[in-house]
Amino acid sequence: MPAAAELRVRYAETDQMGIVYHANYIVWMEIGRVEACRCHGVSYAEMEADGFFLAVLGVEGNYHAPARYDDIVRIETMVSSLQSRMMEFSYAMYRASNNELLFTGKTKHMFLNEERRPTRLSEKYRAVLAAAYAADHPA
Amino acid sequence: MPAAAELRVRYAETDQMGIVYHANYIVWMEIGRVEACRCHGVSYAEMEADGFFLAVLGVEGNYHAPARYDDIVRIETMVSSLQSRMMEFSYAMYRASNNELLFTGKTKHMFLNEERRPTRLSEKYRAVLAAAYAADHPA
Amino acid sequence: MPAAAELRVRYAETDQMGIVYHANYIVWMEIGRVEACRCHGVSYAEMEADGFFLAVLGVEGNYHAPARYDDIVRIETMVSSLQSRMMEFSYAMYRASNNELLFTGKTKHMFLNEERRPTRLSEKYRAVLAAAYAADHPA
Amino acid sequence: MPAAAELRVRYAETDQMGIVYHANYIVWMEIGRVEACRCHGVSYAEMEADGFFLAVLGVEGNYHAPARYDDIVRIETMVSSLQSRMMEFSYAMYRASNNELLFTGKTKHMFLNEERRPTRLSEKYRAVLAAAYAADHPA
Repeated sequence: MPAAAELRVRYAETDQMGIVYHANYIVWMEIGRVEACRCHGVSYAEMEADGFFLAVLGVEGNYHAPARYDDIVRIETMVSSLQSRMMEFSYAMYRASNNELLFTGKTKHMFLNEERRPTRLSEKYRAVLAAAYAADHPA
Repeated sequence: MPAAAELRVRYAETDQMGIVYHANYIVWMEIGRVEACRCHGVSYAEMEADGFFLAVLGVEGNYHAPARYDDIVRIETMVSSLQSRMMEFSYAMYRASNNELLFTGKTKHMFLNEERRPTRLSEKYRAVLAAAYAADHPA
Repeated sequence: MPAAAELRVRYAETDQMGIVYHANYIVWMEIGRVEACRCHGVSYAEMEADGFFLAVLGVEGNYHAPARYDDIVRIETMVSSLQSRMMEFSYAMYRASNNELLFTGKTKHMFLNEERRPTRLSEKYRAVLAAAYAADHPA
Repeated sequence: MPAAAELRVRYAETDQMGIVYHANYIVWMEIGRVEACRCHGVSYAEMEADGFFLAVLGVEGNYHAPARYDDIVRIETMVSSLQSRMMEFSYAMYRASNNELLFTGKTKHMFLNEERRPTRLSEKYRAVLAAAYAADHPA
């Protein structure tokens, strides 16, 4: 079961086509994964304070229907892959009012240490993300 | 030969990791394709005024090295596919000072009319984009 | 009593100084006034659908302490002036965790019609905003 | 004579009113002052590397006419006040195609050191900013 977060579309996020500008969904994926981590017990702010950074290696997104100003968007986020130095999240976004699918996407990340070099997570964070992965992939 | 555009990284585009926030490259791809169109003789602003909209269907991006505040970034853009109702652009971004590759990406688009329904481009625009495609794909 | 809204600081909103980039507070004022209107019974999205636009004539802001990534920010918004064709909102923003004052600001607006010309609000909207003004300014 | 910078309006900077979203002018003021510093011989990136930060204490802006997508905007920036620990810039923005005034604004700054505490600039930077102030305020 994916972790869910909600946000309301800001006027600043629209463009002159009258819909949400496409790059904002990339920002929204960040909100999705941070809330997914939080809901599994990991604060990303704390993770950075502990010296672990989640660098973005890749993003991809597909646009199914446009979000509009003032819509409430529900973001469902899953841990789709977890390796020793990398992980992936996948996302689906819906218009909350009618459950219409708006966007699907993925992001790929590498764990970095304070010197911004590839590293392994400490056991504390690793265990939580592994539990999140397991929750999203029942046997 | 791809069309090239340059921009200077804004302070607003950095994040607390001390590098450019990853969603900005998605905005920069837009700048790349608009300048690519302009350099082939198509103003996107005019194209919208003529009732053609280039809706974004998909984006993907890979991050090779981080851009930093005040860097000059060179964006090279190519028309990588041109069909009757859709097209794709591909992009490579470099730090101008040392030609380091920062980012590669693609965007996929559908042509929409003023009612925001799929449409074919008028001959005027089609011819120019076809020439751009041909220039990027010499026989 | 001012209307209150809350938001959580996004990673995208930080800059390389390690704090929230200052222009984001201007976006947050927009969120504050939209939520203030909503909490007084006016949906700004509906207001635009009814042909009334709230153009921004002026903004000002003073920065008291920096908001940081993942902070919850509380925005208190008041209708500080209401005239026939113009209105002003004033704002105070606090870090929710410790009630520290972060930012105070004002925005000045003109009512525009669908042709984007100055207009008076319809009685429906006027009455609600007048009630909001009165609530914020008890005799 | 104020220092001038130019930028082209990005699609991302428009909103559903069909004009530039108002918070972007605050970002553009940052571009204006950085280019003004550069044109007087100060790189703000270097200044930060040397341990001096220009924190924003206050902003204000007045909107005279809307910038639109693809417009070229000319930003004229002046040093309007220079004190031992603080300074102010003032800005005027014009549509380059017809010299129409779009926006006027001011920002107020405090110099901070690496510990983010108020400080005085080193003589190197002070002299350049004083020259910029003098150039903008002939006797």
